Amino acid sequence: MRKVVLAVVAVSSALIMGAGGKSEDVKLLEEARKYFEPLPKVVDNPENPVTPEKVKLGKMLYYDPRLSKSGLISCNTCHNLATYGVDNLPTSVGHRWQIGPRNAPTTLNAALHVAQFWDGRAKDVEEQAKGPILNPIEMAMDSPEEVVKRLRSIPEYVKLFREAFPNEREPLTYENVAKAIAAFERTLLTPSRFDKFLKGDLNALTREEKEGLRLFIEIGCASCHNGPAVGGRMLTKFGVVEAYWEATREYVTLEKPTMPMDVGRFAVTHRKEDLYVFKVPSLRNITRTYPYFHDGSVWNLEDAVQVMAKVQLGRELSEDQLRKIVAFLKALEGEIPKHALEVPVLPPSTPETFKPEL
Amino acid sequence: MRKVVLAVVAVSSALIMGAGGKSEDVKLLEEARKYFEPLPKVVDNPENPVTPEKVKLGKMLYYDPRLSKSGLISCNTCHNLATYGVDNLPTSVGHRWQIGPRNAPTTLNAALHVAQFWDGRAKDVEEQAKGPILNPIEMAMDSPEEVVKRLRSIPEYVKLFREAFPNEREPLTYENVAKAIAAFERTLLTPSRFDKFLKGDLNALTREEKEGLRLFIEIGCASCHNGPAVGGRMLTKFGVVEAYWEATREYVTLEKPTMPMDVGRFAVTHRKEDLYVFKVPSLRNITRTYPYFHDGSVWNLEDAVQVMAKVQLGRELSEDQLRKIVAFLKALEGEIPKHALEVPVLPPSTPETFKPEL
Repeated sequence: MRKVVLAVVAVSSALIMGAGGKSEDVKLLEEARKYFEPLPKVVDNPENPVTPEKVKLGKMLYYDPRLSKSGLISCNTCHNLATYGVDNLPTSVGHRWQIGPRNAPTTLNAALHVAQFWDGRAKDVEEQAKGPILNPIEMAMDSPEEVVKRLRSIPEYVKLFREAFPNEREPLTYENVAKAIAAFERTLLTPSRFDKFLKGDLNALTREEKEGLRLFIEIGCASCHNGPAVGGRMLTKFGVVEAYWEATREYVTLEKPTMPMDVGRFAVTHRKEDLYVFKVPSLRNITRTYPYFHDGSVWNLEDAVQVMAKVQLGRELSEDQLRKIVAFLKALEGEIPKHALEVPVLPPSTPETFKPEL
Repeated sequence: MRKVVLAVVAVSSALIMGAGGKSEDVKLLEEARKYFEPLPKVVDNPENPVTPEKVKLGKMLYYDPRLSKSGLISCNTCHNLATYGVDNLPTSVGHRWQIGPRNAPTTLNAALHVAQFWDGRAKDVEEQAKGPILNPIEMAMDSPEEVVKRLRSIPEYVKLFREAFPNEREPLTYENVAKAIAAFERTLLTPSRFDKFLKGDLNALTREEKEGLRLFIEIGCASCHNGPAVGGRMLTKFGVVEAYWEATREYVTLEKPTMPMDVGRFAVTHRKEDLYVFKVPSLRNITRTYPYFHDGSVWNLEDAVQVMAKVQLGRELSEDQLRKIVAFLKALEGEIPKHALEVPVLPPSTPETFKPEL
């Protein structure tokens, strides 16, 4: 037995410390670890601990269209887990087919972000979850009280809230609707080959992907897109070197972009320095979350990367650089956790449940 | 070993042939078997054999919103498997929030029906599946060719069609889109406690449910609602004794019923005898597929049963009869097959894939 173990140690040392290409890989890994971390299993929140009961309830609420006025739109309508937590539309469709102003960001890995929404106006997924349900152009519920009233008319939900929030006198509150959904979202992490690499498996990425990773760091992408989510850690101006809408214009395939000059975080703070400031999105699963940017204006990942190089870093990437960086980005495609893809059977309404308004 | 087997036979004979209440139950079972059958595992179609490859592909297509012009509406939008294959709306919402004229029937157990749609205008689920995708107020695709072109731009679909239709020169056709979806639907069967009863387990139903079943047969409900789906076997006039819209009016909770006097199958055949003729719906999972009737005008099952007694059989049920019949109907609530609730991760679009039109 001891011999076998020693042999394995010897082989893995050879893999990491070996000559030529291998030692380059070790250096790359060391460099990468300065910017990135593997995904955790769960993004816990001491103020809203992730429990199985809360996750179960949260998943049901996430899939339940009765959280919308029409009874048709659920969280999963725009953050469809079959398509990596997005709707793959430029901007989303809400109540009575109203078109929203910004692209739906993925719920996958979102709990890792420093703040929620493109302009960071919610501090965490708990606060975020309260927004779309009441937004008149999204799920359009009239008030938090209406949401609670509707859920309270469904005995199975009353029971599930009691189980998910066992020490509370009144567990079925709007606050807890959001907490349950957020607890579910805190489990939506998608480990990929890049995580294997970060954990020390130098062969988890191909040669081209590693070159892409090196370029991603060298060129400066990683100065904003870093951390476990490869982004989501800060807000910054979109269009440092030149106006983003000038750069995206040539790639826009839609007839009418919905909001050509979105002021970004400025609309929240009214501070001059927040003009055109947006959250740096996570690049995990970026191959699946097209179209790109806050306005969903650009459909192809190659184009989006080229735009970013131009407007943030003031450079044009060669075809070779572009190909390698995109290869690296593809390696960020991860696995959606199985429990998230098991659709819950929703409890039936009762005669007391509100009727949908179309 | 032999002894154990004999003992089991003896016990089960005692259960079936036993004295008192038991023999009544045996008579009820015998009577019930004249009208009903347990659900099969799969509803096969010799012209479209159900294979694992076809079911896998069909499920992906069922969940894929790219089968609609907007890229937002999938089969599962109106036939949501989280809510027993329906949307629980009076009538459905389609492209650009257009409201359809009739209530979305469940896809569960639908493959058993003698024909599809409320007016029976499609002969089977294969023919049915071709309808909504092209219907301008539903999924609104411009033509079968557009659907095929869109899917052909996604390499994983090309591969999956090849696997599902291995002996065809061109497997990716609109015909096969429908065949794959239909093959998936042919597996959507929901066995319930009633099936256990029909198979001989006399204790599978409660006393009240059995009394409801007896009434269901005696009163005449079973003369239309029969077969393995407890309905779906014939088309008949809705409103034999009196006009249905007179009877439903008092239960209607919506401000504006969408189509107060739907002519039913007459619109298809233009024959006088088809005026107000509709398919007899399956009553399996009827507790979950509210609101009721082709116009979704009645929300409560008790009300719907009372309306049916009145307009089809010319009688008013006592509270006791109503309670028992509804108890029996609740026992028809079955289990949605697990594979149907496992959401497929959908393959990504490519630059060649059509862009959604909102």
